[in-house]
Amino acid sequence: MLSTRFTQRFGLKVPIALAPMDPASGGRLAAAVSNAGGLGLLGGGYGSHDTLQAEFDLAGDAAIGCGFITWSMGRDVSLLERALARRPRALMLSFSDPAPYARMVTDAGVPLICQVQTLAHVQRAVDCGAAVVVAQGTEAGGHGFDRQATMTFTPEVADHLAGHAPGTLLLSAGGIADGRGLAAALMLGADGVLMGTRFWATQEALIHPAAKALVVGATGGQTVRTSVYDIARGRQWPPEYTGRLMVNDFIRRWHGREEALKAVWQDEKVRVESACEAGDHDCANVTVGQAIGLVSDVPPAALVVRRVAEQAAALLRARGASACAAMPQATAATA
Amino acid sequence: MLSTRFTQRFGLKVPIALAPMDPASGGRLAAAVSNAGGLGLLGGGYGSHDTLQAEFDLAGDAAIGCGFITWSMGRDVSLLERALARRPRALMLSFSDPAPYARMVTDAGVPLICQVQTLAHVQRAVDCGAAVVVAQGTEAGGHGFDRQATMTFTPEVADHLAGHAPGTLLLSAGGIADGRGLAAALMLGADGVLMGTRFWATQEALIHPAAKALVVGATGGQTVRTSVYDIARGRQWPPEYTGRLMVNDFIRRWHGREEALKAVWQDEKVRVESACEAGDHDCANVTVGQAIGLVSDVPPAALVVRRVAEQAAALLRARGASACAAMPQATAATA
Ligand SMILES: Cc1cc2nc3c(=O)[nH]c(=O)nc-3n(C[C@H](O)[C@H](O)[C@H](O)COP(=O)(O)O)c2cc1C
Ligand SMILES: Cc1cc2nc3c(=O)[nH]c(=O)nc-3n(C[C@H](O)[C@H](O)[C@H](O)COP(=O)(O)O)c2cc1C
Repeated sequence: MLSTRFTQRFGLKVPIALAPMDPASGGRLAAAVSNAGGLGLLGGGYGSHDTLQAEFDLAGDAAIGCGFITWSMGRDVSLLERALARRPRALMLSFSDPAPYARMVTDAGVPLICQVQTLAHVQRAVDCGAAVVVAQGTEAGGHGFDRQATMTFTPEVADHLAGHAPGTLLLSAGGIADGRGLAAALMLGADGVLMGTRFWATQEALIHPAAKALVVGATGGQTVRTSVYDIARGRQWPPEYTGRLMVNDFIRRWHGREEALKAVWQDEKVRVESACEAGDHDCANVTVGQAIGLVSDVPPAALVVRRVAEQAAALLRARGASACAAMPQATAATA
Repeated sequence: MLSTRFTQRFGLKVPIALAPMDPASGGRLAAAVSNAGGLGLLGGGYGSHDTLQAEFDLAGDAAIGCGFITWSMGRDVSLLERALARRPRALMLSFSDPAPYARMVTDAGVPLICQVQTLAHVQRAVDCGAAVVVAQGTEAGGHGFDRQATMTFTPEVADHLAGHAPGTLLLSAGGIADGRGLAAALMLGADGVLMGTRFWATQEALIHPAAKALVVGATGGQTVRTSVYDIARGRQWPPEYTGRLMVNDFIRRWHGREEALKAVWQDEKVRVESACEAGDHDCANVTVGQAIGLVSDVPPAALVVRRVAEQAAALLRARGASACAAMPQATAATA
């Protein structure tokens, strides 16, 4: 229905990948997306052997891939070895230089996906042998740069790849939550999309139901990029990365007061962790992107895959048909 | 070729509007865009009677509109009266509440266009009788909010209008510079686009040639939102507005040191103004958006209009045709 180089290369029915979200993208969510015809990526996240094993098991024999937060996984490379031993459909590296680990992936015959935030990252990913780059715009949920938005970054990366690595595939990420976003990304030059926030708000996502309920009816204007939760959790992110989350009391209290937070972070860590357990999202993080403004329910993931693909196909057909009708000679040329 | 509600309502050939950029969008640029089949909007900007008169005259009898920076024009409403006396094709109000001036526009029988940055602004524009809202994403050049990007804001606004004011048209602005962006905006639910940065880098734009040359070959990652030039020029922007510009020495020196700048702004004003004259863009502002990463030449504006429309139509046709081919039954339904 929406055949692209990405669906062809990976044997998919739809050009949609699940973002390897920590902790939302567990084995059940990844399997649901793969079984619906997309590419499910398990969220290896910061990295834990027990979780990785358990979630891979939960995915059963669905053809899923796996993704890591590169700088964090790099503290224990045996995590990557374990993931590769499961013969994943793809291995995605995000956030900091993939070079030290890329060869392990490509030597194992597993397609390497790299998430990028700048044109320099793109070239680095190409040099590392990436089969796919994911161009992440600043509207994305979770970590990334406060630099370029999807609307310009996707075509800029497409131009770069066309000139330097035409065989490398391009996925667009950040702000895509429905068929309009998928159709737009294809127009911008992507071979498909990677969606986080939209799948975060599905039945299978490993997220507290109270948090999912919060984003239904919210607007994308209620999110912000900040480092306060990284500080509170003692996570050593490289300086250019911030996280996008929904604004809450915790962020209102500490954003802009990072030095004060650093002085008391261990107390705040305890508070945040118990708030997470309790489903108190005034204090616990709600890690989502501007796409929450396009989320109005919490369906099973397979339904999201189907809806997004069908809406995109219908939009492209309708517009294509009217463009075709108006220019019969050109239609003949492209048919 | 690319017929939409916007082209139909305004009698255009292409769904493309020129942003009323101060000072880039003079009468010659506005006329060039209108004569090429788009909607040219003169940049009334901060407002000056002499400039307004002269630039309207330069446009000859081209069917152009005009736009103002609302809070600035509000200090001398006779500017708006003068503009309306020229029977503009449309009158655009951007930046702060349009309500005090909207009736003057609609009573004159001139279509009102409002540029918006939040859903609350959208509803306000609708209540003011706007015929068109321009949803501005944060990647846009010039002033705006650091809030939502085009990829999510356009469909969010489309949903709001569908529910509350289905007759109000929607243009997408911010990060659109080629046919990929126009096609994407149409997929996101817009009736057309408003482009600033792309037209800023055309022959007719009232911008120093050295500045235009700078953006050719730049990446969108080289822009930033800041208030330093507003401070240096003593312009009293409402607090939520910042401007997006290309990073230069002046910004590197003062961004983040706004209080220090306020202490010496009058000296800096003199420096910036003479740098503008001299074409020294280490010191003078280069007001452009992330779309500079998609700009690689400085053509006449008419060529931009034609290229953007033709590329968008070709993309929609090609994708539509392949979507059609794959689903013959659905094609029949939409044909
Ligand atoms: C809750 C959450 C957690 C995320 N965690 C990760 C992660 O562990 N690894 C990663 O590569 N990307 C992570 N991301 C970013 C996604 O890969 C992707 O860039 C983003 O979700 C795309 O934008 P969207 O949220 O608008 O769809 C996360 C995103 C969210 C929303
Ligand atoms: C140099 C420059 C000056 C601008 N001045 C104005 C202005 O005076 N009034 C206005 O409504 N918008 C102004 N804008 C914003 C545009 O209306 C529009 O939102 C923006 O250009 C769209 O994003 P783009 O630059 O990526 O095309 C300006 C933009 C630029 C680049």
